[in-house]
Amino acid sequence: MSSSQLGIVKRNIQRADKSAVDALRQFGVATVHEAMGRTGLMRPYLRPIYPGARLCGTALTVLLPPGDNWMMHVAAEEVRPGDVLVVAVTSECTDACCGDLLATSYRARGALGLVVDAGVRDVKDIAALGFPVFAKAISAQGAVKATPGSVNVPVVCAGMMVNPGDVVIADDDGVVVVGAAIAGEVAEAAQARERKEAETRRRLAAGVLGLDLYGMREKLRQAGLKYID
Amino acid sequence: MSSSQLGIVKRNIQRADKSAVDALRQFGVATVHEAMGRTGLMRPYLRPIYPGARLCGTALTVLLPPGDNWMMHVAAEEVRPGDVLVVAVTSECTDACCGDLLATSYRARGALGLVVDAGVRDVKDIAALGFPVFAKAISAQGAVKATPGSVNVPVVCAGMMVNPGDVVIADDDGVVVVGAAIAGEVAEAAQARERKEAETRRRLAAGVLGLDLYGMREKLRQAGLKYID
Amino acid sequence: MSSSQLGIVKRNIQRADKSAVDALRQFGVATVHEAMGRTGLMRPYLRPIYPGARLCGTALTVLLPPGDNWMMHVAAEEVRPGDVLVVAVTSECTDACCGDLLATSYRARGALGLVVDAGVRDVKDIAALGFPVFAKAISAQGAVKATPGSVNVPVVCAGMMVNPGDVVIADDDGVVVVGAAIAGEVAEAAQARERKEAETRRRLAAGVLGLDLYGMREKLRQAGLKYID
Amino acid sequence: MSSSQLGIVKRNIQRADKSAVDALRQFGVATVHEAMGRTGLMRPYLRPIYPGARLCGTALTVLLPPGDNWMMHVAAEEVRPGDVLVVAVTSECTDACCGDLLATSYRARGALGLVVDAGVRDVKDIAALGFPVFAKAISAQGAVKATPGSVNVPVVCAGMMVNPGDVVIADDDGVVVVGAAIAGEVAEAAQARERKEAETRRRLAAGVLGLDLYGMREKLRQAGLKYID
Amino acid sequence: MSSSQLGIVKRNIQRADKSAVDALRQFGVATVHEAMGRTGLMRPYLRPIYPGARLCGTALTVLLPPGDNWMMHVAAEEVRPGDVLVVAVTSECTDACCGDLLATSYRARGALGLVVDAGVRDVKDIAALGFPVFAKAISAQGAVKATPGSVNVPVVCAGMMVNPGDVVIADDDGVVVVGAAIAGEVAEAAQARERKEAETRRRLAAGVLGLDLYGMREKLRQAGLKYID
Amino acid sequence: MSSSQLGIVKRNIQRADKSAVDALRQFGVATVHEAMGRTGLMRPYLRPIYPGARLCGTALTVLLPPGDNWMMHVAAEEVRPGDVLVVAVTSECTDACCGDLLATSYRARGALGLVVDAGVRDVKDIAALGFPVFAKAISAQGAVKATPGSVNVPVVCAGMMVNPGDVVIADDDGVVVVGAAIAGEVAEAAQARERKEAETRRRLAAGVLGLDLYGMREKLRQAGLKYID
Repeated sequence: MSSSQLGIVKRNIQRADKSAVDALRQFGVATVHEAMGRTGLMRPYLRPIYPGARLCGTALTVLLPPGDNWMMHVAAEEVRPGDVLVVAVTSECTDACCGDLLATSYRARGALGLVVDAGVRDVKDIAALGFPVFAKAISAQGAVKATPGSVNVPVVCAGMMVNPGDVVIADDDGVVVVGAAIAGEVAEAAQARERKEAETRRRLAAGVLGLDLYGMREKLRQAGLKYID
Repeated sequence: MSSSQLGIVKRNIQRADKSAVDALRQFGVATVHEAMGRTGLMRPYLRPIYPGARLCGTALTVLLPPGDNWMMHVAAEEVRPGDVLVVAVTSECTDACCGDLLATSYRARGALGLVVDAGVRDVKDIAALGFPVFAKAISAQGAVKATPGSVNVPVVCAGMMVNPGDVVIADDDGVVVVGAAIAGEVAEAAQARERKEAETRRRLAAGVLGLDLYGMREKLRQAGLKYID
Repeated sequence: MSSSQLGIVKRNIQRADKSAVDALRQFGVATVHEAMGRTGLMRPYLRPIYPGARLCGTALTVLLPPGDNWMMHVAAEEVRPGDVLVVAVTSECTDACCGDLLATSYRARGALGLVVDAGVRDVKDIAALGFPVFAKAISAQGAVKATPGSVNVPVVCAGMMVNPGDVVIADDDGVVVVGAAIAGEVAEAAQARERKEAETRRRLAAGVLGLDLYGMREKLRQAGLKYID
Repeated sequence: MSSSQLGIVKRNIQRADKSAVDALRQFGVATVHEAMGRTGLMRPYLRPIYPGARLCGTALTVLLPPGDNWMMHVAAEEVRPGDVLVVAVTSECTDACCGDLLATSYRARGALGLVVDAGVRDVKDIAALGFPVFAKAISAQGAVKATPGSVNVPVVCAGMMVNPGDVVIADDDGVVVVGAAIAGEVAEAAQARERKEAETRRRLAAGVLGLDLYGMREKLRQAGLKYID
Repeated sequence: MSSSQLGIVKRNIQRADKSAVDALRQFGVATVHEAMGRTGLMRPYLRPIYPGARLCGTALTVLLPPGDNWMMHVAAEEVRPGDVLVVAVTSECTDACCGDLLATSYRARGALGLVVDAGVRDVKDIAALGFPVFAKAISAQGAVKATPGSVNVPVVCAGMMVNPGDVVIADDDGVVVVGAAIAGEVAEAAQARERKEAETRRRLAAGVLGLDLYGMREKLRQAGLKYID
Repeated sequence: MSSSQLGIVKRNIQRADKSAVDALRQFGVATVHEAMGRTGLMRPYLRPIYPGARLCGTALTVLLPPGDNWMMHVAAEEVRPGDVLVVAVTSECTDACCGDLLATSYRARGALGLVVDAGVRDVKDIAALGFPVFAKAISAQGAVKATPGSVNVPVVCAGMMVNPGDVVIADDDGVVVVGAAIAGEVAEAAQARERKEAETRRRLAAGVLGLDLYGMREKLRQAGLKYID
């Protein structure tokens, strides 16, 4: 099965370990992205549709033609508790592929949220549901149900490759994808990073300079930085 | 009088029936847009300038040259209670054509809000007034008063044709335009749609799948969708 | 020292008079921009990263290569109480050049906020700190520390020239820059404008038309505006 | 029939007078736009897909859902010699709605070109055909044939209202629309303008200043322009 | 090795069969994209930097930090005759990562061209070399050599996943990627499609309508299309 | 006189030395940009309006309100042989501020070309004149003559600060600005760079790797680059 193929629903996917997902849930997107060596981040045009939205779960991928959300209904049946729907499009589009009815359905099936490289609508109702959504656009423009896409194939969403079962984490800072196979290891690196940052924060708050804390002065000099009056 | 002509103020326009406007006021933008067969929506780059802004009224159209808001003052005199100002520009522009002074004036004349394919400023003050505004941009850049545009000519605002007197409805999901002649009929279709959606929502919340509710399985099979393991 | 030169930190800059900065602090961005004859405004894509953010202080300029925030650490040492960091980039970029650690450091040194023609991250933490930031983007994408930029050279930030020591004012309506030499005079003009607007607002709220208040009718007629039925 | 309605083909439309179209054909887009009082211009993102493309004909309008070009086949049957296809979309889209096969078909039916607020492909073949096309994008992304749009309803294309039968003129400078009813009068105004410009060009080429030719000096002084050393 | 990891050069990659690449070379991008079921296309913002540029070869992938082209030099050593460099970036960037010196080097090593999701410069010299380049931007802005990226890891370029060794084909219509494993089969499908199109073109040129040729009339009627006068 | 002030024409400006301008004329934009330490480049959205356009001269700056080109006529009188008009706008705009009449006038006065952070029209005629223009957009949309801007004040054009009298160089790769005071020194650095590149090009063409030519292997190893199979 090649990437981005249309007309396919893969029923059995390998989801990341629940324990690793739970471990990752406690960290912010920026921390996880750094813990992976600054990889995995989707393009920053994806934004939460209501303040404070946050999610962490396993990717159930959906691939849609522009202006067509038929597969969003097919995807609902594939949802397992703890999943996050990750919706990619075959060409750029801002039309709504999800509204409050679909959000209600996903939630009833145990989904934890939605990441969509297109539009959504009924944002007031979705916010009232408390169903976190990260989207490229808010648009009332409705979709047709005419052309098959795919469910649970590898997709590119907002510039980032996502495989079904990967861990997806989203908060105010954006959306990051963690490969299922490395989720546990990334959670540990995130933990280590967070511990270290707490101490750094304390010292910076006390007025210590990063220049000294990180020992940057000599390297800056070697790089040619000049101080003038 | 041709569309988009400059230098004209039309004083007598045919506004949509008040009863139809009042009927439409109770529905959201997405519902109205669907009730019109998925037409009438402005481009999604128009956004409310403060959370919760919502409006429904009859269009008083304004056409401006870029960076010039002289006609905004001319338009104030044409406002009738229940009007919404719909502002189009002859070329793309993000400069503010409206601030809190004009908003104060419009409100004093009975206007219910503003839809503008350009910028606005004094957004804190306008929010405090509770005067709903949907705009392309927020910008403090001021405008000149040097070149006539028009008032109450047909305009294209954010990609959608608007005739003076049409009904304009805006909420979190965008801005939709309903032709004055079909406003009553659209309100009825919106009512019917809403009734049907309430029942659908109840069933989806109970875990029923859209695939079954809408009878999609056979059509998907015919369209070539394949399930694999 | 030419504009935009790389690899330079200027230590002694001439900051605008504290009294002028304090005087300007009481005015909104739109008022100050008008008081300067409609100049000084940065492009409107800079937005506050949390609602209600507002700042007024003296510019400490930073010039960064794309994806590299090394100079942000160098800049921390140059901060004097009352400064606002104004960050420009040598080419367009949305990566985060500042997160909550740097914000903590700047605040500890007395900085009043940050204006950045690129991205920031940890926006929830920065909002919790109450450290006002105006940015082009929110992105978790981290930066490297490999290539020197400059501190306190003249820069172009969001389309506007900024000299170190200029006054920078930002609120919901955008970001405006006031030359240090004219800060006092601009504050006075802003005061005069605000007094005048209060009276105008009162009259417009009472239903007086701008057409009459500003005596526009004859000028519109001369400009060729036609009223039709 | 309301604007932008879907699922409709209007068979009999009133095309602009052939003599007026022929008269307009000899003028450039900028001249015609000026002759109409600076109205009628589509947004400048529409560009010719090969150098030197130029067209002038009567609009046959097509409205498409995003990613669906079914109506392009329906439109072929409606083409009359001298028509230009003007293609609008219900939401923003860059997918190809036309390639060399459709272009071949349109040409065989007597069409003079294509203006499309979306994408086209096979640009090398279309250029070889000498069939002028003005488009928003070049993209090989194919379209489906699943959902009806409309033919010969009023549409908004690249920000400009177009009625079936209007005159559409396109060259290096963009695309302009002339209402069928005013086509003759606009051609005359264009002729007058061109005559006047020839003399102006001669004088400017001889070194005469526009300041003197247009008598601007006193008006500039009154507008407050100051000369300094 | 996970996707998009930084700091890695993979030396041995599996390139698509030379015979399949040679077979694909004779087809245009639109034909290949259709032959793959309308998949594989990069976003249309990638454009040839000179008229008539065209390429077909095996992907040598490069992943760069923004504003840093160090890996472009590392990649040169990995080039095998018949390769096309496919350059992705960790965040959006328009800086030049390639100029005529690197192009000269790639060509000397047997590369057939360059596809880059960022900028290039020296376009006149590169055109004179006859080295085909498809890029997001033309910019003289130079890059640093400070931070490692990767070579021959899977990347996302202009919205499309590319594995090292895949076939990349580019012409006026865009850039398409064919998985190495399916290259032969896609070439056959492209051949079949082209044969069929030749006959279709002949009939359309003779004035036959697609409506009749493709038997669309009944389907359109069922989809609700209405003809009116 | 502060930057970007409106309503001012400065008559006497200090132009860069003719010999330095002549020396710079022989180099490309990329070379000059590198010779200045990678500074001075305008944003890459400025593009030549016809193939092969190239210019080098001293900046005569113009600042325009959006949609208003009155100052373009004022500027004509200030042109001295060897000047290049550099046009900035107070807010983003794509309207044409220059057509073939103004281009004819500028040329008659000795101007060598035009760089404009907005639109131009009559591009076919301007190309026929051989008057090089670099612009943000091509648009037939005309401008009014109602509001004064300025001539020969410091401006920001396409993201770069330009002082009257600076050297402006433009070719296929973009537009670069060289401060008048450093023009001679930059020309020398450009000469040195070009000599060095000729030798580098020869060696790369012979198959030598940049990795070896620039001695990068050890630095890459230290930076952590890993080769795998």
